[in-house]
Amino acid sequence: MSQTGQIRIALAQINPTVGDLSKNADLISKYAFDAANAGAVVVVYPEMVLTGYPVEDLANRPSFRAASIAAITKLAARINNEGNGDLTLLVGYLGESDAARPQNCVAVIYRGEIVATYIKHHLPNYGVFDEYRNFTPGNHSLVIRVCGVDIGIAICEDIWQSGGPVAELTKRNIGLLLVPNGSPYEINKDDARLALVQKRAIEVGAPLAYVNMTGGQDDLVFDGDTIVVGPTGEVIARAPQFEDGLAVIDLDVRLASSDPDLIISNPPILKYKKLQSGVARRLGDLEEIWQGLVIGLRDYVEKNNFKSVILGLSGGIDSALTAALAADALGSNRVFGVAMPSKYSSQHSLADAKELAINTGLNYRIIEITPMVANLIENLHLAGVAEENLQARVRGITLMGLSNQEGHLVLATGNKSELAVGYSTLYGDAVGGFAPIKDLYKTQVWQLAKWRNELAILQGQTPPIPVNSIEKEPSAELAPDQKDSDSLPPYGTLDQILAIYIDQDGGRPAAIAAGFDPALVDKVVRLVDRAEYKRRQYPPGTKISSRAFGKDRRLPITSHWNES
Amino acid sequence: MSQTGQIRIALAQINPTVGDLSKNADLISKYAFDAANAGAVVVVYPEMVLTGYPVEDLANRPSFRAASIAAITKLAARINNEGNGDLTLLVGYLGESDAARPQNCVAVIYRGEIVATYIKHHLPNYGVFDEYRNFTPGNHSLVIRVCGVDIGIAICEDIWQSGGPVAELTKRNIGLLLVPNGSPYEINKDDARLALVQKRAIEVGAPLAYVNMTGGQDDLVFDGDTIVVGPTGEVIARAPQFEDGLAVIDLDVRLASSDPDLIISNPPILKYKKLQSGVARRLGDLEEIWQGLVIGLRDYVEKNNFKSVILGLSGGIDSALTAALAADALGSNRVFGVAMPSKYSSQHSLADAKELAINTGLNYRIIEITPMVANLIENLHLAGVAEENLQARVRGITLMGLSNQEGHLVLATGNKSELAVGYSTLYGDAVGGFAPIKDLYKTQVWQLAKWRNELAILQGQTPPIPVNSIEKEPSAELAPDQKDSDSLPPYGTLDQILAIYIDQDGGRPAAIAAGFDPALVDKVVRLVDRAEYKRRQYPPGTKISSRAFGKDRRLPITSHWNES
Repeated sequence: MSQTGQIRIALAQINPTVGDLSKNADLISKYAFDAANAGAVVVVYPEMVLTGYPVEDLANRPSFRAASIAAITKLAARINNEGNGDLTLLVGYLGESDAARPQNCVAVIYRGEIVATYIKHHLPNYGVFDEYRNFTPGNHSLVIRVCGVDIGIAICEDIWQSGGPVAELTKRNIGLLLVPNGSPYEINKDDARLALVQKRAIEVGAPLAYVNMTGGQDDLVFDGDTIVVGPTGEVIARAPQFEDGLAVIDLDVRLASSDPDLIISNPPILKYKKLQSGVARRLGDLEEIWQGLVIGLRDYVEKNNFKSVILGLSGGIDSALTAALAADALGSNRVFGVAMPSKYSSQHSLADAKELAINTGLNYRIIEITPMVANLIENLHLAGVAEENLQARVRGITLMGLSNQEGHLVLATGNKSELAVGYSTLYGDAVGGFAPIKDLYKTQVWQLAKWRNELAILQGQTPPIPVNSIEKEPSAELAPDQKDSDSLPPYGTLDQILAIYIDQDGGRPAAIAAGFDPALVDKVVRLVDRAEYKRRQYPPGTKISSRAFGKDRRLPITSHWNES
Repeated sequence: MSQTGQIRIALAQINPTVGDLSKNADLISKYAFDAANAGAVVVVYPEMVLTGYPVEDLANRPSFRAASIAAITKLAARINNEGNGDLTLLVGYLGESDAARPQNCVAVIYRGEIVATYIKHHLPNYGVFDEYRNFTPGNHSLVIRVCGVDIGIAICEDIWQSGGPVAELTKRNIGLLLVPNGSPYEINKDDARLALVQKRAIEVGAPLAYVNMTGGQDDLVFDGDTIVVGPTGEVIARAPQFEDGLAVIDLDVRLASSDPDLIISNPPILKYKKLQSGVARRLGDLEEIWQGLVIGLRDYVEKNNFKSVILGLSGGIDSALTAALAADALGSNRVFGVAMPSKYSSQHSLADAKELAINTGLNYRIIEITPMVANLIENLHLAGVAEENLQARVRGITLMGLSNQEGHLVLATGNKSELAVGYSTLYGDAVGGFAPIKDLYKTQVWQLAKWRNELAILQGQTPPIPVNSIEKEPSAELAPDQKDSDSLPPYGTLDQILAIYIDQDGGRPAAIAAGFDPALVDKVVRLVDRAEYKRRQYPPGTKISSRAFGKDRRLPITSHWNES
């Protein structure tokens, strides 16, 4: 039976920026100081922390890979020069196979050198992931000995799938498993994560530390939720969701239990008094979504170097919620709201927009669109749906004009329900550089609005969202007395059908089996299928070359990678 | 040594429609009649011909898989009922594994039954392909005996990669290899295809028939180019590019040479006089691109049930080429051109637009945008770039208004060079449901315009594109005396740098190594990187659910799959 001992590890739950190798290296260095100062002997960073994650097709560019490889080497020397060389660092980066194919790697850094490299084996290629597209897999487990503790390494998906290096590790009798991650937020994903982490800890019979990143990257937001469990799956520590920070954790571990691939240091640490660790408060379901949306929006704005955002305020719930989100994300002084009433706007539209502006403190102005619409109709002779859409497009032109003139990022205020069924105007209300609530169903919009107002009351603040915006019947106000319910089923019903059809990939049969009227299901799936083109902004066009835009060139929008 | 004999095979180079199982089944049935009438004993259809290709994430939907599986069973019975049951059919469809995961399959149909199934092994997941995402691979080769000939089957990528079922087939001593494909067009891809087909034929030591589809599907266009080669790689037949048709080919083959998985019929065919076969004329490089663009546009319009297209005519080369393409694709009576002069438009702009309209015979009108722009500027107080963009956006609004009112599909006329560097106005000239020349560099636009005019002269017709549109200096005409060259390097240079940076995935070092000025390279790559957001679909927005639009729900725009 092997001896037991102690080890102090540091887990850096941080927010890298895709492509900004130098800024990410600074961040890694800063946390190395903190980890060393806290007396840790190992510090673990998230997956591909040096390049940011996901890099998508940037992985294919040899110059980007070369820069990543040069940066990791330079970082190793820097950490040593900064006096933190005795710390063992696990730093994710973009590496290369012998055949010069991209790989998702973790460098083990010690005393100025990359002493070992682990290559991710399981490459997820479903949902938002394109890793099998972008990387070549590794095929070996890696065990390193630090202060007498035999430490296995796995990267993210390596613990989600069976087989591969983690299966090997179950036979290698390791003392500790460290897992860097780039695991995007999804409702209730934290529950799935914990169960998985517990399962793998039990399989390897050792403590497991799961380190995830924070921050937003285009559509993705990372929620942190760094977890440490013991060898029987007991939760030792759990970091706050969505917050940056360093967790310093003391663990009881088996010593010299394995046949490691590399010995960094043999002598165990003398017994010492453990730091206390604990489980941070878990956010409620709506609080969690709100935090995700706030950080997703904030990082899109900040990482793309915008100073401010602008959006249309219709008095309705979607623009009100988006404005409240923006105020939470950026501060209300960086949010510019524009009410753009037309002849079909009701009195309460302006009143509700104004109340929202006052409640949140955002910058507010009113631009009447009636004269512009009238002039366009006179020149173009449009009527019916063409006239309805024209109003939305004049609003789009107005916001884009102000964006071009004043430098704001335009926020589109559409929700998932209307995006799903195409209840929006192309180049009208769909205009914008970021759509903060595009993944919220309308019923979730209402829930979050109520939740946010209640939070304000609890905190003794003015609720941001006017009650009337929450309670009134939804209307696009593009024609006299128009209501969403003229064209669509009630949102309560619609959203349930959409959840089956979209989120669960259920078809018509699944929706009918769930009890919905077949005629209604038919109507909804037809709307969703026909609106597919509306969910693309730049139109498709025949591809003739080896790399056409849109179809086979998939790059991050938000990237600080600077080729020049 | 095995005996030799003859076999007559039919290869259906046809154009299925994604999702329209019933229409595709009709097409398959029609070609089965033709094949049977021509005396063929086997007929081969393209990859996934029954569902259309690519189905993208529709593969994940159980109801779609169930419909495909039901349709293939029904098709087998139908072919028999129609009196063609003695024909052996190879029909691609979407199947399912035992674990109910989607698979890319070929059904072998004989006398009303699916007598065997081959499952694609190599699943391409690079470039435009997402097959590893969408399908579960098969792992076995399949050999069937028909009229004494042992026939191996492979699907598309199975012959592009080493190993797998084709490697097995090299040891199975087959008499014939049949390969259904869904292989999209790309410049010069036909050369690569032929070399590959020859290599695999030599490896298996038997004739190989490669059958590819035709037609457009969103960004993709399939060029047919069905090829038959003999066991030493000699070309026996090659079908016309981009044209639908049935190739009926007589082959000399080894008989009963293998240990087949299934014997459909043992008796060889008695010796008969062979039909002549030959190699269709190969299209020139520019002719080939033109055909691809024509068919890509035509099928996008037809398969999405549009009656007509509308586009802005600036007098410039991009809109002129797009109009000429549209006239070739649809006939000029279905093409509506709108000249939209502003106060910055030069005299020749209107004259050139009018000449184009007369040359092609398209429907032409003039809408002055000056009063609308003036009114908007008065109301919105815009200047500078905001004013420039406003003009383009009024044109966008005008085209969308006419589209809503009259039902045309709007064509965006942007080329790859300007899309690459962001030299376009969001919601302005980028407006449209299809962008026919989005994958053509500006220099290719000029080349094609000249080529198309020369073709007209050869055919004794009026050249469609005004010479002045080809020869004048490019200008957006959004400000006084504006020229593209004020902001961009000459297109000849720009396009060469773009080809390195985009098509070859070369970075800055590759462009500099090719001899371009580093400062110029820096400027170009910076423009390309910053324009990434302009090339997007619906604006990004924070994902919170399991299936968010844009990021992890990837569906065809053009799909006739009707869930309801």
